Amino acid sequence: MVRLVVLRYPFLHPSIRYKKLARSLQSKCYLISTGKSNMATLQLASWATNLTYTNLTTGVLTAANKSLYNWAGCAIGGYGSQPAPKIALGTTLTAFSGQPTSSILGANGSISQGFADAQIAAFVNGIASYVDDYDDTHLQTIIHPAGVVASALLAVAEAEGSVTGNDFVTAFVAGVEAECKVGLSVYPEHYDVGWHITSTVGSIGAAVAVGKLLNLNTTVMQQAIGIAATQVVGMQELFGSDTKSFHVGRAAQGGMMAVLLARHGYSSSLQGLEAKYGWLHVVSTRENATAYFDQLGEIWEIEKNTFKPFPCGIVMHPTIDGAIQLSNETHDKDLSTDDIKSVELRVNPEVMVLTGKTDPQTGLEAKFSIFHTAAIGLLYGEATPSQFTNEVVKNQTVVDLRKKVNVTEDDSVPTDAAYVTLEFEDGRKLEKHVEHAKGSIENPLTDAELKKKFMEQVTLAIGDSRAERAYETFTGINNMTDVAKIRGLY
Amino acid sequence: MVRLVVLRYPFLHPSIRYKKLARSLQSKCYLISTGKSNMATLQLASWATNLTYTNLTTGVLTAANKSLYNWAGCAIGGYGSQPAPKIALGTTLTAFSGQPTSSILGANGSISQGFADAQIAAFVNGIASYVDDYDDTHLQTIIHPAGVVASALLAVAEAEGSVTGNDFVTAFVAGVEAECKVGLSVYPEHYDVGWHITSTVGSIGAAVAVGKLLNLNTTVMQQAIGIAATQVVGMQELFGSDTKSFHVGRAAQGGMMAVLLARHGYSSSLQGLEAKYGWLHVVSTRENATAYFDQLGEIWEIEKNTFKPFPCGIVMHPTIDGAIQLSNETHDKDLSTDDIKSVELRVNPEVMVLTGKTDPQTGLEAKFSIFHTAAIGLLYGEATPSQFTNEVVKNQTVVDLRKKVNVTEDDSVPTDAAYVTLEFEDGRKLEKHVEHAKGSIENPLTDAELKKKFMEQVTLAIGDSRAERAYETFTGINNMTDVAKIRGLY
Repeated sequence: MVRLVVLRYPFLHPSIRYKKLARSLQSKCYLISTGKSNMATLQLASWATNLTYTNLTTGVLTAANKSLYNWAGCAIGGYGSQPAPKIALGTTLTAFSGQPTSSILGANGSISQGFADAQIAAFVNGIASYVDDYDDTHLQTIIHPAGVVASALLAVAEAEGSVTGNDFVTAFVAGVEAECKVGLSVYPEHYDVGWHITSTVGSIGAAVAVGKLLNLNTTVMQQAIGIAATQVVGMQELFGSDTKSFHVGRAAQGGMMAVLLARHGYSSSLQGLEAKYGWLHVVSTRENATAYFDQLGEIWEIEKNTFKPFPCGIVMHPTIDGAIQLSNETHDKDLSTDDIKSVELRVNPEVMVLTGKTDPQTGLEAKFSIFHTAAIGLLYGEATPSQFTNEVVKNQTVVDLRKKVNVTEDDSVPTDAAYVTLEFEDGRKLEKHVEHAKGSIENPLTDAELKKKFMEQVTLAIGDSRAERAYETFTGINNMTDVAKIRGLY
Repeated sequence: MVRLVVLRYPFLHPSIRYKKLARSLQSKCYLISTGKSNMATLQLASWATNLTYTNLTTGVLTAANKSLYNWAGCAIGGYGSQPAPKIALGTTLTAFSGQPTSSILGANGSISQGFADAQIAAFVNGIASYVDDYDDTHLQTIIHPAGVVASALLAVAEAEGSVTGNDFVTAFVAGVEAECKVGLSVYPEHYDVGWHITSTVGSIGAAVAVGKLLNLNTTVMQQAIGIAATQVVGMQELFGSDTKSFHVGRAAQGGMMAVLLARHGYSSSLQGLEAKYGWLHVVSTRENATAYFDQLGEIWEIEKNTFKPFPCGIVMHPTIDGAIQLSNETHDKDLSTDDIKSVELRVNPEVMVLTGKTDPQTGLEAKFSIFHTAAIGLLYGEATPSQFTNEVVKNQTVVDLRKKVNVTEDDSVPTDAAYVTLEFEDGRKLEKHVEHAKGSIENPLTDAELKKKFMEQVTLAIGDSRAERAYETFTGINNMTDVAKIRGLY
């Protein structure tokens, strides 16, 4: 696999060949511009402020629609399933909420807790949409793009009022493209050092989205990007705790506040990204990595967004996929999981770096345990939020099977693949090779599966009939005449 | 000058000799622990939660008192003198403020804008206290310690009520020690890469202070430190803009929110500082630099706090000091600044890195222009907030003299020293060598000078009689039975 291509921008730019090369290679490598690019912030701001709804292709609109309703489903479901968003709302609502202009998704069963001011709504919805690790993934960067951007955007749209669906979707796409292009510019070095890339780029994406929604001009957008960029939230040490999702909520709030301040004349920098002591250099060792900015509007990152079939760290998905398939086969072959002697996994080394927790104690920790997820895939034949409760994590059968899981790290296994082998007490073996995990680019969720995922999460939170209306509402955002009216629709 | 001493902790620890060595060298070097220290967060949290008022020496209490009232003076003065805090309050107050429990310092001439909820108060006071670059400095790390910590602390103390002066001061000292020890652990690498160290360590200091005030136990304090540490706000690219002081406000708010969330059971990490993907590693290349934590409560960083005589970047202070002295001498010697042919400066190279703006356009930019500050020192014979207005920056006489300033960088000149030479048209020369700038450890502001600084700032903002009462109030915090009553006292 090609990991690195050096393009001597600006010498090759803007030749067609360069762009074709970039496009053809970009899923296999990352680009480095070795020339001077001292206009990254201007380039991004200018692209975003000039973007119009008519620029969005059918593919982009479809991807945006799925990204948005998947986000809403995760937020509504996540609010109820985990303590983090409720604690966050409880901590802030009484003490700190101004006018309750904006929806707290999932909390609006109870009118008293269903709304808050926009900064609390952005914060809590960000947390709720992320807390189950069930959201979406831009696989090239491991950014989960919708959460930060949509949480900020809906909160502001409701507070502002008179926002058409088309404008909302355009702003959402602008934000997602911004965060993914910025992410591509620093991935993987930035991630490898320990940053939680979803939130570190998320505040920039949220600022671009909210800035677009509020019609900032290019200069003020640059100022907003500077204020957003200087708030770098999220370290990987917090994975497995409530604070992982705090990152998303805080980044949503930070990006939104950046725009509101800039709109009121708060000054920052016009080169917040590319300056010597700006974002790209302070949080990454990559040199002048702004070549991706040339692809804005040409390669759409949102079209590469994928949706998680399982509510946990994405590097474990191939293993879960294999474990679920094997679970079904054991039934077919009259074998019981009780008789398993060992579970042998062969996976990419990244799996153990991110999800090597051998003995998780809570549901959130289990979302980062390859041992837990292999066990529950085999035992339950599924991996939904129900398999990541504290109870299931402590269930003795689960614990026993977890201990039988052995992991072999193998560089030759791609991150979306896995080998899962069951060895039974009687000597029999069952093996499954997953080439592309369910939910990957090559093996995406179908529309029906994505709807099923939404309905399961949302039904559990607010019941059948409201779930159906919520599905209609959130898949129909693009056609709304005023997104601020969303609270009355489901 | 010794820049680096490697101590093979834990082998030498806890020998008396090691500590003596550390103490004798610590102003000239920084310490690196090469052993394993996987308890930094616990060590810091445990020290803070166990700290009592009786542990504070007279020297610490004196330093805390000066730090607090200097902070209050800067906040009251800064609110009026610059647009940033007013924009920040205007952006947030109407839309986002809950119960107005806490003072907006400097805005309380107008009752309608004088109070907000604690998170807005922490935010705006943080900005106001910092915006004039007139605050305090821990010279070993260039951290300005009081702003983030005191802004969070006063806001929470007022919201909570029933906080004695002794408890308030103890919490303040805990926060300042925390941020400075964390800062020492990563300075200078962390600063050199472009982080604004005052705010990046500030959120941790604010969390420790607020956590101490709210009597967190050690484990919850660790959780709060984790949530604070993962919010890394502040890049140097924003220097010279409103966003520089935003860093301080946002860090105050972030540290405060970390405590409130942790107190409500929001989980994070017990090793947020020292873990592989925790703060010390993600934002610094220094290896296991936690030796300074062993000095908590033995070497008090607050005793090294200094107070700025001039409202601008501290590396320029020796030059200003020299320029003001020369301004007085030109009068004595019957020379006019009109007749200056050139102004020759010989300074440490750091001066040009941080303050090399040749042609500032705004007052905030001028705070980072060695050319401007040399010119106004010579022309006005003083450097107060009045010399950093947009008007003075554009004054033709100032602009003309600025252009005559030449800077020679010289490694052998310490950062608190400068050589300033005036060459006159008639061939005469006047030279001034400043060994230790006014406001440095060796040449600190006297008590009378510090009071004068407070009174000048505060009088301008809220008038004579209230300024006198404010001085009594903020120098008397330690003796108050309830700090929450502070709003009624001046």
